[in-house]
Amino acid sequence: MLVTLRDDPAEAEIISHKLLLRGGYIRRISIGIYAYMPLLWKVLKKISSCVREEMAYAGALETLLPQLQPSEIWQRSNRWNDYTKSEGIMFHLEDRQGREIALGPTHEEIITVLASDLLKSYRQLPVTLYQIQTKFRDEIRPRFGLMRSREFIMKDAYSFHSTDSDLVLTYNSIDLAYRRIFKRCGLNVVAVEADSGAIGGAASQEFMVTAEAGEDLILVSDDHNYAANKEKAVSLPKIPVITESGICKVISTPNQPSIEELCDAQQIDSSQVVKVLLMLARFTDHSHIPILITLRADQLVNEVKLRNAVRSHLSIQSATLLDVIPITPEQVEEQGLAPLPFGYIGPHLENKVLHGAKTWQTHFLRLIDPTASALTSFTCGANEYNKHMVNMKWGPLVPLPSQVDLRDAEPQDQCIHNPLSRLQVNRGIEVGHIFQLGRKYSSALDAKFTNEKGNQETFWMGCYGIGISRLSQAAVEQHHDTKGICWPLSIAPFEVVIVVANIRDQVQRNLSEVLYTVLKNAQVDVLIDERQERAGVKFKDAELIGIPWQIIVGRSASIHKAELIERATLKTIELNASELLQYLLQILESTHMGLLND
Amino acid sequence: MLVTLRDDPAEAEIISHKLLLRGGYIRRISIGIYAYMPLLWKVLKKISSCVREEMAYAGALETLLPQLQPSEIWQRSNRWNDYTKSEGIMFHLEDRQGREIALGPTHEEIITVLASDLLKSYRQLPVTLYQIQTKFRDEIRPRFGLMRSREFIMKDAYSFHSTDSDLVLTYNSIDLAYRRIFKRCGLNVVAVEADSGAIGGAASQEFMVTAEAGEDLILVSDDHNYAANKEKAVSLPKIPVITESGICKVISTPNQPSIEELCDAQQIDSSQVVKVLLMLARFTDHSHIPILITLRADQLVNEVKLRNAVRSHLSIQSATLLDVIPITPEQVEEQGLAPLPFGYIGPHLENKVLHGAKTWQTHFLRLIDPTASALTSFTCGANEYNKHMVNMKWGPLVPLPSQVDLRDAEPQDQCIHNPLSRLQVNRGIEVGHIFQLGRKYSSALDAKFTNEKGNQETFWMGCYGIGISRLSQAAVEQHHDTKGICWPLSIAPFEVVIVVANIRDQVQRNLSEVLYTVLKNAQVDVLIDERQERAGVKFKDAELIGIPWQIIVGRSASIHKAELIERATLKTIELNASELLQYLLQILESTHMGLLND
Repeated sequence: MLVTLRDDPAEAEIISHKLLLRGGYIRRISIGIYAYMPLLWKVLKKISSCVREEMAYAGALETLLPQLQPSEIWQRSNRWNDYTKSEGIMFHLEDRQGREIALGPTHEEIITVLASDLLKSYRQLPVTLYQIQTKFRDEIRPRFGLMRSREFIMKDAYSFHSTDSDLVLTYNSIDLAYRRIFKRCGLNVVAVEADSGAIGGAASQEFMVTAEAGEDLILVSDDHNYAANKEKAVSLPKIPVITESGICKVISTPNQPSIEELCDAQQIDSSQVVKVLLMLARFTDHSHIPILITLRADQLVNEVKLRNAVRSHLSIQSATLLDVIPITPEQVEEQGLAPLPFGYIGPHLENKVLHGAKTWQTHFLRLIDPTASALTSFTCGANEYNKHMVNMKWGPLVPLPSQVDLRDAEPQDQCIHNPLSRLQVNRGIEVGHIFQLGRKYSSALDAKFTNEKGNQETFWMGCYGIGISRLSQAAVEQHHDTKGICWPLSIAPFEVVIVVANIRDQVQRNLSEVLYTVLKNAQVDVLIDERQERAGVKFKDAELIGIPWQIIVGRSASIHKAELIERATLKTIELNASELLQYLLQILESTHMGLLND
Repeated sequence: MLVTLRDDPAEAEIISHKLLLRGGYIRRISIGIYAYMPLLWKVLKKISSCVREEMAYAGALETLLPQLQPSEIWQRSNRWNDYTKSEGIMFHLEDRQGREIALGPTHEEIITVLASDLLKSYRQLPVTLYQIQTKFRDEIRPRFGLMRSREFIMKDAYSFHSTDSDLVLTYNSIDLAYRRIFKRCGLNVVAVEADSGAIGGAASQEFMVTAEAGEDLILVSDDHNYAANKEKAVSLPKIPVITESGICKVISTPNQPSIEELCDAQQIDSSQVVKVLLMLARFTDHSHIPILITLRADQLVNEVKLRNAVRSHLSIQSATLLDVIPITPEQVEEQGLAPLPFGYIGPHLENKVLHGAKTWQTHFLRLIDPTASALTSFTCGANEYNKHMVNMKWGPLVPLPSQVDLRDAEPQDQCIHNPLSRLQVNRGIEVGHIFQLGRKYSSALDAKFTNEKGNQETFWMGCYGIGISRLSQAAVEQHHDTKGICWPLSIAPFEVVIVVANIRDQVQRNLSEVLYTVLKNAQVDVLIDERQERAGVKFKDAELIGIPWQIIVGRSASIHKAELIERATLKTIELNASELLQYLLQILESTHMGLLND
């Protein structure tokens, strides 16, 4: 059932999406919902079987957990509201009894409840369970085909440990398994430090397929010893311009509310200036906390780092952080406060300006980035319109707030591990993510085991995901040319396609049958294209669907010859049938061995 | 991760459900929702791979369709209301854009839309596509573990044809594939004629695992040439008692409204009496049609046949039949009608008694079972309280209504194919169902291909299901004893378990390792139980989880001997290790070959 499209499908934005649609690999059923046709299903099965082998090798056991998840356990872990309301990415429904049920986007809750039920003693630990399963996310903007769809296949694994250090051992062995999986699938993948996001936990690492169409920005050092998601990346900031220090004083800076205007007018470098951002953290319980963020004026604030900083500084807060937004003059007015000197605010802005705020807390959460705290002397707003302070210093009058990394690492920044190496920016498609969850879920769900001393202890947990369906499309994004897909051998829907140029020619049909039978008997995954189509159509289709090796059986079948084409290079050789088989079988074997043994 | 329970779980009603819970195969997460633990997952994978082999052999291609299904296509096939409202077995939700989405309980709609999009020409036909997938049903009464759960694994296949006869060919080849699948899985399965139910279509056949706990009643002839679900079964009714015919007249029968009272008082046999049932068919559009059902008084009405008869006689009706219920005197009164002589109603009851009914149609749909129409003379109600007619005959005054089979076939009835053979009743668990759908869905969804003459034609379709997760439990229901499960070799989670009696005994450990390694190298699926438990616990667990062959390595390890136990028979032999291996490998091979080649 080979059904290809001639024209580029209008719905597709990126090349891999187009090629999968045109090649008949997928069909759209609804927004962000696709049918996996037989050719793609074969790709997905090959990826899955590679994943199963490596997970088994890492000691993990396969299981299958329900897709329907009762709301109660999501309420126990305190994620029900986040997932169904504030972020709203979890599909949910009511059953005929009116009980709320979620469609699983992830399984931390279910597996933790199960582990707590099954793993009673330290002697049963460690345990790693995994499943390959369809997951659901009600994405705000489903797009790019299988890249961000609402129904997708994941491999998700969860590990349970009696100690933190044992968790690290498993985390490292899964890290290795993942590197082997991606390599075996023929993917060029970068492992990057990552933000743990809504999943939570201590350490986490993402695996990124580098590709132009990637939604993530990653920073990689020239020496390849450091790579991180931009959300998380750190770097050495450039050294600030140093000037002679003078006396601290107020200067008049009319109409210089922006850093650019200020630096132009005062003839100073922005690295000598401290900028202050007024933000508002909003929580699910409708509480609001004003935040005063200070960083060097030549630096940009990193929103993910900011949100994490707010979360960790306010860990007592029982409600969940919704977002952090800039405060506007209108909001200040709504709070019944006196106008604030926007554009001229300095780090010494006093809490008392918030006195009488209607719904805000009446003191700032103050955060400072080390780039700002490291300055020995700086220019900043004077908390009065059209006035700045010069030669300002941290000290009793301007106390240092909590220091926390808040800045964006930028391309060309120096790497913190090796100042001689600079960071480069790449785009990446996240295909894997591993987390040291610690005790976040086991604490919330009260999951305990009996330790050697007979005491109850909370599990240490890790979790590990691979986007199976996304990986298949990422492989296309990384392996294609202008004519179509160039599948890596290990995950191609077939290894070889035999194209019978003229199906009415008995000699061509006979030779094709012989080649097919020999290859089949040698366990080669081979397809024969015997459709009643013109030869040109079949050649084009073979290029489009991208099976790694093509055997073209045409007129020279009469002298027992056929053409062998390597799809990736389009290199063609004509060979006697038996030589062709010998050559091809040798190449297939050595390619497979190469992928396994590296 | 072998975690067994000592006590019978309270939630389980039938033995297979108990054994799967106690053996640690499944864990309940919510009502009708189970986690498949690693041992069961292995069983399910073995069943699935057997299904895949046989489906591929029958020429079917594997695919994977979405579980999320947009409501629109269910509206086009006119099943949305049935599935979400009247029967309500389909889970459904609204996404963030407010679009209605169903969780697929079946995939006729999706696959028909896809086929119509992909299969343009008769040259591409026939095509059979299948998938192995988790399905969802919001059951009214989820029960018996995996037997009737709300989330379960199905293999569903759909075939597309240019002609009816081509559909029959594929239907027959899938029938054969199914028989092979069940045989290979070690199940005793009966194929029975079945009602097509809500799926619709012409012919259909169910595959029943015979077991006491089955929810279905099936009737099988002594000669095994006929088997049918009781919902659908036909038989020869017993020959009615014949009496001399007299003059047709009204007799007084005070206080004889029931057949039993009438027969007792009048000294007649119930096979000489015609009984009339007043029923009401209710439809989704709130319309109601009164039905007058006539059958021989010694016969019972079959509700499934009755519903099908109502549907086919009222095929013009655009609404869907909700149910058929007996009419009560209260309902007659509510309709503003004069009281009807309940208990004394005869087949000649006139339509005019319905005149003025508020919401009912004002004429009866009249149906008669052939047992009643075949009577040349009979007793029946006189449509007047305390009066019956005797020696009544069909004719101008009592015209024959539409004849249709409405009666229940009963155990001990004669088989219609062989009157010497009688029907026996069995209980069965439905594990497979195949349907000749005809053009029901392709017409509704306007799915067409171009035929040889260049004209557009509607596809012929078949559909074919196997309950994969249900099958696993049905196997336990058929294969267990008082100590636990006795898995058939082909679908057992492991083929062999090596139980190390005393894990602290180095000799036992060494011998176990050797046996394990040899078996592993011979591709045997072997488990080693090295838990720090008492030997007795491990022996009991081995019996409970039911791996077909146990090797017990105990004290005689010192003389290089071990015990081999066949789980199903509990036959035990002690053998020298190398003899044991030779013997076991031979048995395993011959059992597998036997299953494949029969």
